[in-house]
Amino acid sequence: MSKSAAYAAAAADRALGPITIERRDPTPDDVQIDILFCGVCHSDLHTARNEWGGTVYPVVPGHEIIGRVGRVGANVTKFRKGDLVGVGCMVDSCRTCSNCKEGLEQYCEVGNTGTYNSPDKHIAGATTHGGYSKSVTVDQAFVLRMSEKLDPAAAAPLLCAGITTWSPLRHWKVGPGQKVGIVGLGGLGHMGVKFAHALGAKVVLFTTSQSKVEDAKRLGADEVVISTDRAQMKAHRNSFHFILDCVSADHDVNAYLRLLKRDGVMCLVGAPEKPMAVAAFSLLGGRHTLAGSGIGGIAETQEMLDFCAEHGITSDVEVIAIKDINTAYERMLKSDVKYRFSIDMATL
Amino acid sequence: MSKSAAYAAAAADRALGPITIERRDPTPDDVQIDILFCGVCHSDLHTARNEWGGTVYPVVPGHEIIGRVGRVGANVTKFRKGDLVGVGCMVDSCRTCSNCKEGLEQYCEVGNTGTYNSPDKHIAGATTHGGYSKSVTVDQAFVLRMSEKLDPAAAAPLLCAGITTWSPLRHWKVGPGQKVGIVGLGGLGHMGVKFAHALGAKVVLFTTSQSKVEDAKRLGADEVVISTDRAQMKAHRNSFHFILDCVSADHDVNAYLRLLKRDGVMCLVGAPEKPMAVAAFSLLGGRHTLAGSGIGGIAETQEMLDFCAEHGITSDVEVIAIKDINTAYERMLKSDVKYRFSIDMATL
Repeated sequence: MSKSAAYAAAAADRALGPITIERRDPTPDDVQIDILFCGVCHSDLHTARNEWGGTVYPVVPGHEIIGRVGRVGANVTKFRKGDLVGVGCMVDSCRTCSNCKEGLEQYCEVGNTGTYNSPDKHIAGATTHGGYSKSVTVDQAFVLRMSEKLDPAAAAPLLCAGITTWSPLRHWKVGPGQKVGIVGLGGLGHMGVKFAHALGAKVVLFTTSQSKVEDAKRLGADEVVISTDRAQMKAHRNSFHFILDCVSADHDVNAYLRLLKRDGVMCLVGAPEKPMAVAAFSLLGGRHTLAGSGIGGIAETQEMLDFCAEHGITSDVEVIAIKDINTAYERMLKSDVKYRFSIDMATL
Repeated sequence: MSKSAAYAAAAADRALGPITIERRDPTPDDVQIDILFCGVCHSDLHTARNEWGGTVYPVVPGHEIIGRVGRVGANVTKFRKGDLVGVGCMVDSCRTCSNCKEGLEQYCEVGNTGTYNSPDKHIAGATTHGGYSKSVTVDQAFVLRMSEKLDPAAAAPLLCAGITTWSPLRHWKVGPGQKVGIVGLGGLGHMGVKFAHALGAKVVLFTTSQSKVEDAKRLGADEVVISTDRAQMKAHRNSFHFILDCVSADHDVNAYLRLLKRDGVMCLVGAPEKPMAVAAFSLLGGRHTLAGSGIGGIAETQEMLDFCAEHGITSDVEVIAIKDINTAYERMLKSDVKYRFSIDMATL
């Protein structure tokens, strides 16, 4: 075991602050990573404040981790000291269920091991700690190769916001000749716009905010629809092949389901707290699909990272010092970030 | 024009009673049909009582029509006098939109012409009248061939209850090696059980009613789950490839979404009046899909009818006289029918 500086929440109602945690010594299959940057995901806040229940304190959030390999175990062949690597939302899974065998560890039937706040398989009674820290030790099977071409601060959010939007766009085969909607321009939505555009689709961004129109176009949207404008919405009826709903606040999904073509798919990646009211006729009328998708598997995360390196895609980030994390949470709640905070771990 | 005896509702709050309606003389593309039997669909009641709005009175319901060809127009090549034929929920569509061209007239972008209560393209200002009548005249493109092998009284409901369940089972490729759930054992559900079984799937019927267990097994269910029994439901988690939800009453769809395997699909064919409360995590957890499907196209209706002739599949019906239609509606509301009423039009 070795000690690592970190930032943790000690309780649901406490601000995050410095802590020292233990990291395991690398097993033969492990990679020890010196963390450079960690993106700030809304899940970090939900977990820090126990909004989904089940938080074990102290909790060190962070699952958009980029760093350099410090040490590797004897069996590690994929990585060497000094390599730039990433870790996303998972650090392990059962590896034997049919979903794991298909490379969809995010749907592991036993339940994957979250990067933070999951029972730690290696330390009895402990829970995993995330990337708001100096160092992390992860099984090589859950470590991603990162290109040196990308700015590591801006690449960090690819590990969660990136793969969460990439996976459904690829699963439902978004590409040229398709009209694709992205609902909401936040951490997830801005990656959805970039990816759908890079995959060759015609991209329409839906937002309630007139102030986001120009930015959405800069990011790759061909058109921006103000979703509160009935006439604008009506003009797009029956025209979308696919809509990616990136909104976590309560909203009317029927308004978007009506915009789908026959056999069109709307996929949720945000998770509104309250159940959504879905009218049966929104689905029946054109054999519409409302689906959900959660992050992505390790293989497709690597595919996404390689695609990003090739196309020069990263997240738009505001780099912050770790001491500003609590302020960042407050700003995130007000959607006052374009479009992701990335913590410079040198400040820890 | 010629006169036809019929049964109509004169207003939302009036019982159905006898009426005389006008039927057009066959155009060159038309088939005039002497109706033998007409199934009773819950949509008939919804329309008669204006529960969906938009009913034009008097309305003659009925869209599960079986009869014999009386006369044909000059261009009619597919049918001859005396042929046993069927008419379902549509009697026309635009025939030029992409959905019509793909044989999915039920999703006609202009809107198809319903068998009843739709603007009649042939008679200015009139609305179409359905199968609670002695005779109907329909364009040959919307007339189906019926096998003489099947009991016509029991085959009539195939034209709506049959195709409504057949179409999604085929679209989502239900077959051998799959575990398929059917929710609700009514007019739709009992056809879903028969079809899913005939297509080679393992069939599990969900019902709230212990009294339906034996009947479900007789109809083809391999297993019956009492959906109010938490332990029974839990035992089926993460195990279904496809679930067909045939319930029109309000119910918790999340309880079924949780039973889907990864990438499993739950398809609604019933239309609960109130929006359904769908929890995002019911979809996100296993990339689950909640879809809807409405009736089916003409080509797949013919495919279904041919399959039924080959496999000896019909609806379980209770044959009634037309004078008993109002009582039948009351019984239908209490689910007191196994599993569809079929009106013997000789009683009109």
